[in-house]
Amino acid sequence: MPEHSRSIDLTQVSEWQAGELRRFQDYLVAEEPLEIRIDGAPLTVTMRTPGHDLELAAGFLLTEGIIQRREQIVSLEGETTNEGASNVVRVELSGAEFNPERMRRNFFAASSCGICGKASIDAIRMRGIPPPNTEFRFDPELLCSLPDKLRVAQTIFGRTGGLHAAALFESNGQLVVAREDVGRHNAVDKIIGWALLQGRLPLSQYALMVSGRGGFEIIQKALVAGIPLLASVSAPSGLAVRLARELGLTLVGFLRGRRFLIYSREDRLAPTSGSAH
Amino acid sequence: MPEHSRSIDLTQVSEWQAGELRRFQDYLVAEEPLEIRIDGAPLTVTMRTPGHDLELAAGFLLTEGIIQRREQIVSLEGETTNEGASNVVRVELSGAEFNPERMRRNFFAASSCGICGKASIDAIRMRGIPPPNTEFRFDPELLCSLPDKLRVAQTIFGRTGGLHAAALFESNGQLVVAREDVGRHNAVDKIIGWALLQGRLPLSQYALMVSGRGGFEIIQKALVAGIPLLASVSAPSGLAVRLARELGLTLVGFLRGRRFLIYSREDRLAPTSGSAH
Repeated sequence: MPEHSRSIDLTQVSEWQAGELRRFQDYLVAEEPLEIRIDGAPLTVTMRTPGHDLELAAGFLLTEGIIQRREQIVSLEGETTNEGASNVVRVELSGAEFNPERMRRNFFAASSCGICGKASIDAIRMRGIPPPNTEFRFDPELLCSLPDKLRVAQTIFGRTGGLHAAALFESNGQLVVAREDVGRHNAVDKIIGWALLQGRLPLSQYALMVSGRGGFEIIQKALVAGIPLLASVSAPSGLAVRLARELGLTLVGFLRGRRFLIYSREDRLAPTSGSAH
Repeated sequence: MPEHSRSIDLTQVSEWQAGELRRFQDYLVAEEPLEIRIDGAPLTVTMRTPGHDLELAAGFLLTEGIIQRREQIVSLEGETTNEGASNVVRVELSGAEFNPERMRRNFFAASSCGICGKASIDAIRMRGIPPPNTEFRFDPELLCSLPDKLRVAQTIFGRTGGLHAAALFESNGQLVVAREDVGRHNAVDKIIGWALLQGRLPLSQYALMVSGRGGFEIIQKALVAGIPLLASVSAPSGLAVRLARELGLTLVGFLRGRRFLIYSREDRLAPTSGSAH
């Protein structure tokens, strides 16, 4: 089955407009549960848009700290039944730790203040994530072109209007890969999983653009992948800004038209010499 | 500390606009982890906007199927330390089952097709949730006024631009309660938790309006609370529409201006006789 037909449902809807009712067929973004199984044991179930499932699973394992390197994935495959692709991805790992309960306990054992934003940031630090590339630069004018490029790349969104997108850009503004999903986190995990499986990590020469808000968990995922610049069309949270500042990520929000806000490390947004403007 | 000061952070940001850079102080929505502990044992940690934490915890327990009735909550309190409110809510339950592993297994054991959308819907059915009120009616013209009313009620969003909202409306268009959060699910759980603690469940005479997409989990939460009509400004997923149709919820999307789409049970959107238009 082509990826698109799994990502889109077609259904009859009614439109009410200024008192008139009419019926037509409309596209909806598909949403199905995906189970990730490690060495036969269920790890997690996430609601996602079918398509790029292996990338999603690989990205999830990396950004959630279950694996640190591509080589820890011995095998990665989607289960197939008589009816076609199922919603299960089977992973065999080597040398990875994935005791969810221990992960959770470690998360907050790191901090003296208990459950708080500082503990959340300390937990990221404890994973030994290095600060992203300090040499990376992105031209501010070029940055303003990313939302349009992301929109053009949203092949599913155009038909359904119903989902989040993320895309990776080179410093010359070239789009490298774009992914869409009903879940914001999933779109980012699909991008990072793609990079992991392609052997492209760390993503120290790329900017990541997301369609939604820049929350704490999105920043965390970007940092794990080594991304130096994260831009969104919307607002980040206070904790997202603190994390970006502490670990040295350039965080941009409200990127619309020829305006944006910079929340951390604006030094990466120097106009590039020799840029084509 | 007043709720608002916990929900908002203030920080310095840089604005880039058409090549000019300036600095100013800006508001950010706060995001902190919240841990829910049941009878002393940690149940879950969720990233949320501080404020209305007890409602969030109560709503989460209900909509996730850990409790079915208000009476099962023996006590519910936020932990306080020397530094003020902490990010822990302690709950004592009576007669509730909350074996997370068993919940997960039951989720997919219900269906012959394994992990799929149908199994997700069957899992909701198995919880014995009754179909929402079939007598409920909402005037379509009145429905078009809800987005503006929700926007006016978003006290945090106005300053930070960074979060999701949900609000409950009576059938005469009166807003009853509105909540905001960095997480869409949390805003809905806060509303439902409020209703649970107020003894107002089931919400069979109310419409729920949410600022984001209508995904599967949002529909599920609305159904658990007995809400007959869910409206959003954006698109639902295919699975959300299937769940709404199977359980008889009226689902409205793309509610903007004097236009909206109806995905299920449009009979509840008959013009009310005697409405003031």
